Amino acid sequence: MEKEKIDFKPGTLIYPLPAVMVSCGKHNIDHNIITIAWTGTVNSKPPRCYISIQPIRHSHELVKKYGDFVINLTTEPLAKATDWCGVRSGRDYDKFKEMELTPQPAQKVNAPIIAESPMNIECQVFDIINLGSHDMFLADVVAVNADKKFYDEKTGRFDLAGSNPVSYIHGRYFETGQRIGKFGYSVEKKEKMGRKRKK
Amino acid sequence: MEKEKIDFKPGTLIYPLPAVMVSCGKHNIDHNIITIAWTGTVNSKPPRCYISIQPIRHSHELVKKYGDFVINLTTEPLAKATDWCGVRSGRDYDKFKEMELTPQPAQKVNAPIIAESPMNIECQVFDIINLGSHDMFLADVVAVNADKKFYDEKTGRFDLAGSNPVSYIHGRYFETGQRIGKFGYSVEKKEKMGRKRKK
Repeated sequence: MEKEKIDFKPGTLIYPLPAVMVSCGKHNIDHNIITIAWTGTVNSKPPRCYISIQPIRHSHELVKKYGDFVINLTTEPLAKATDWCGVRSGRDYDKFKEMELTPQPAQKVNAPIIAESPMNIECQVFDIINLGSHDMFLADVVAVNADKKFYDEKTGRFDLAGSNPVSYIHGRYFETGQRIGKFGYSVEKKEKMGRKRKK
Repeated sequence: MEKEKIDFKPGTLIYPLPAVMVSCGKHNIDHNIITIAWTGTVNSKPPRCYISIQPIRHSHELVKKYGDFVINLTTEPLAKATDWCGVRSGRDYDKFKEMELTPQPAQKVNAPIIAESPMNIECQVFDIINLGSHDMFLADVVAVNADKKFYDEKTGRFDLAGSNPVSYIHGRYFETGQRIGKFGYSVEKKEKMGRKRKK
């Protein structure tokens, strides 16, 4: 099926992305939060991720200085704080206080976790690469804290989708929508329906 | 507010992520599609992104060989094909044919775009970094093709969320949910309500 396509200016158009709050700072006095969508997983074993930050941002200095940060996934009730922490600067505000968020000690890193987040991913930087407007901080995931509310003790599974994590699409925040299927569902269906498989 | 937290095994838990189909291969004979969630934007100016692929995957060889690939965003009607292309191998199947997807020439790269996708992001690799199980391909966004259907000629805005892009959360695919607000909405509200601003 041919589709009519428009030639769009090259840009940052990969979406949906997670709208996460990254917490950093070693001491109470320099704790900060920056909202980031330029983040993701870059390696499975060992678990490694990245965040990209503009050097002008206050958190850039903190993450560079201490080499530690925490990725806090966000939920619909946290959306307003998430947006606010992306717009305002830690140079001007104590963001935890302003947004009534609770800093708690991390397990392994020199940065606070945000208690209200359903999932706190503790990270240690192993490389910083300048790519133009942003520095990419490559990091190891060294510990994870999960809100007990979304944990099923029977299955050992954490219902992350049940927490309604917030995504960011082209300048807008969105809730999680309807579930379509699980990884591999296209093959399961085929096999159940008894269709002939190639090979 | 203190919350009861569970110590979770360090893992790849940053979500929601985009479930994209990456197309690659220079010639009709070696065109392929791989489904990827380990992708995102790493830099705004110039627009740069990444995809991480295990070396064992067929597409790894193709992307490495030609240095080009296309990130095709997916939608609910494409979800089944998206899952299938992540489960099956291009060594065994012509994925375009099997999933009835249409390869069209890209503007600038040696890889086909998937016509049925609302947004095709053409990429050229500038670095490959091995991080363990995966190689991270860092790439420049060199061209973008957008489905005319979601383009508003009056505003010049592409309604990407309106295409209902598919996200991937911890082993499951999801539709886009309710819109919460646009970037900066937390500040706009405050200002409209005439609350006192700090500084």
